[in-house]
Amino acid sequence: MIIIGLDPSLTCTGWGVVAKAGSRISHIANGQVRTDASLSMAERLVQLDRELTDVVLRPAPDAGAVEEVFVNVNPQSTLKLGQARGVAMLALARAGMPVAEYPTKVVKKALVGTGGAAKTQVQAMLKVLLPGVKLAGADAADALAVAITHANMLGSHR
Amino acid sequence: MIIIGLDPSLTCTGWGVVAKAGSRISHIANGQVRTDASLSMAERLVQLDRELTDVVLRPAPDAGAVEEVFVNVNPQSTLKLGQARGVAMLALARAGMPVAEYPTKVVKKALVGTGGAAKTQVQAMLKVLLPGVKLAGADAADALAVAITHANMLGSHR
Repeated sequence: MIIIGLDPSLTCTGWGVVAKAGSRISHIANGQVRTDASLSMAERLVQLDRELTDVVLRPAPDAGAVEEVFVNVNPQSTLKLGQARGVAMLALARAGMPVAEYPTKVVKKALVGTGGAAKTQVQAMLKVLLPGVKLAGADAADALAVAITHANMLGSHR
Repeated sequence: MIIIGLDPSLTCTGWGVVAKAGSRISHIANGQVRTDASLSMAERLVQLDRELTDVVLRPAPDAGAVEEVFVNVNPQSTLKLGQARGVAMLALARAGMPVAEYPTKVVKKALVGTGGAAKTQVQAMLKVLLPGVKLAGADAADALAVAITHANMLGSHR
């Protein structure tokens, strides 16, 4: 079973793909999609859609998950984040896979054992869980963490 | 020249298409896309994308415009609105057209002459500007108003 996680934003969307066989989870790929800030909003969304669709089609995941965001910033930033997030969720769902959402705290708890874990703790745990993984960046790390969380949850439901 | 306007939201997205020949603007079509609240967020975004893409491909517009939203509601509502708005803007931009954004006040001023006009005034003016138009609903009316605003702006830039 192949699972993709996303940590979407307009500036930089992280993605991470893992495979699950029995209780074993292994790394397939991770990366980040940046959009060109000199383009219009609509053009940036097309750029995000195009690159994510490429990513989604490559490993053909069976399931996807997106980090639920904590929105307490200014409303215009929330709207922009929403726009990128909508396009990101669409890229997964359009490929026919169910898309789950996990709050950041749940992701941190699933990986490190505590919802208040620092990003560095999550990244350290990723390197333990996925030996030899090279993280493309902080957003890709968050995306892999979401993918692993979903892989664990899928297991526990069966 | 064919121009499409959108008034996006997750529940009900209005769309309106007008044609511009010289300084004359005429109605082509308008409608509303509702998404099924019993579906998951990702499935609703796919539904919105699919139906809007149908709408966009039918009249093959040369330009598109979306109402800029005033976001002072709660952050979760803003995020949801952003998700629908991102998918809506993507549907236009993916078809190759430039997508403009207009604040509500500018749209109202363009149609009625004052930024504080009531929705009923805008709808009354639509019936004057587009004789015989049947409005599919309040969101379709807002979308037609955005399309007309953009048609006027495009004219004044030439």
